[in-house]
Amino acid sequence: MRQHQEQVTITPRGRGLHDITHEIARIVGESAIRTGLCLIFVQHTSCSLTIQENADPSARRDLENWFLSVVPDGDPAYTHTAEGPDDMPAHIRAALTSTSETVPVVDGRPGLGTWQGIYLFEHRLHSAQRRILVHVWGD
Amino acid sequence: MRQHQEQVTITPRGRGLHDITHEIARIVGESAIRTGLCLIFVQHTSCSLTIQENADPSARRDLENWFLSVVPDGDPAYTHTAEGPDDMPAHIRAALTSTSETVPVVDGRPGLGTWQGIYLFEHRLHSAQRRILVHVWGD
Amino acid sequence: MRQHQEQVTITPRGRGLHDITHEIARIVGESAIRTGLCLIFVQHTSCSLTIQENADPSARRDLENWFLSVVPDGDPAYTHTAEGPDDMPAHIRAALTSTSETVPVVDGRPGLGTWQGIYLFEHRLHSAQRRILVHVWGD
Repeated sequence: MRQHQEQVTITPRGRGLHDITHEIARIVGESAIRTGLCLIFVQHTSCSLTIQENADPSARRDLENWFLSVVPDGDPAYTHTAEGPDDMPAHIRAALTSTSETVPVVDGRPGLGTWQGIYLFEHRLHSAQRRILVHVWGD
Repeated sequence: MRQHQEQVTITPRGRGLHDITHEIARIVGESAIRTGLCLIFVQHTSCSLTIQENADPSARRDLENWFLSVVPDGDPAYTHTAEGPDDMPAHIRAALTSTSETVPVVDGRPGLGTWQGIYLFEHRLHSAQRRILVHVWGD
Repeated sequence: MRQHQEQVTITPRGRGLHDITHEIARIVGESAIRTGLCLIFVQHTSCSLTIQENADPSARRDLENWFLSVVPDGDPAYTHTAEGPDDMPAHIRAALTSTSETVPVVDGRPGLGTWQGIYLFEHRLHSAQRRILVHVWGD
């Protein structure tokens, strides 16, 4: 049993879902692990991860819009406002989705379903680089 | 350290929570792993997993109804409508719950609390078979 | 590759987010595992886990208040009411957050970002002790 740990840096182009499936598949491939698991962990609390439909972009837009509607920017109920009107909702949206995802490794690749992609869900309007730890282990 | 990977196919009887605890416990038992971890991963984006109360069915009905109320079918805000009025809300409900769950293996069994059950949460009114990857590893 | 499994008992002081980062870091340290993973798993369905901002307490209060507002106590829609008006919303809030979190172990410590803390999110007004299984594995 071996393990491989690597930090990835992503620079999101604004709010929304950013496909990181290829980056994760590359790391799994380079680890040379054929059967095992892959943990993807974001080291932030105002962006998150989600595994979502990779076919039709409208599904991702509708998903983002639902979050903007139910967890709005600038809600007067927020008291944590020092970092701007899009900061507190970013924390709530991150809590509702996932700080990490674990994916089985099958035949040296992420064992995703046909229509699944792995997305960094950026909740801030503008953000600096995002750090993601990827940990692959198995045989 | 050993690992055991198995694909399970579930045919949900319509929308709602389907108890898969016995199926997961069976796989953990057959793996003969006594101490370790068990990853359960659904290969779909319109159903998901949740670990919930296994005692009173009313808790599961109320849970489902909350999701139907806050993420309604046929919301006019959806633009991703080609697969029907229950498709886009299924993706959102899946994002709000879990694509995977990881459970410790204790004494050869899933280390669940007394009142915890593992459920496939089907969000579509009608669906074909659902594929779940189960990965157990440990000693 | 080694593994270390330990049960932790937490007694929450009422509803809200309770920082358990130090407890988790202590267990990772005692496991003497330098590179690997750490699973934190709550054996309950009316509390949960979340990884959130550890700097400003107002972020945690706003997060809790959002959940109280969108998943209110005593909603007349609930039928599962035998355990009190704060029980059913506790299950829903747990489904929206996480029964478990998996964190990479880096240099013998949880590989959290600068502003990340691990929180037990207690959803009941009053609760007895909460059991958490912590499983560390790696080299």
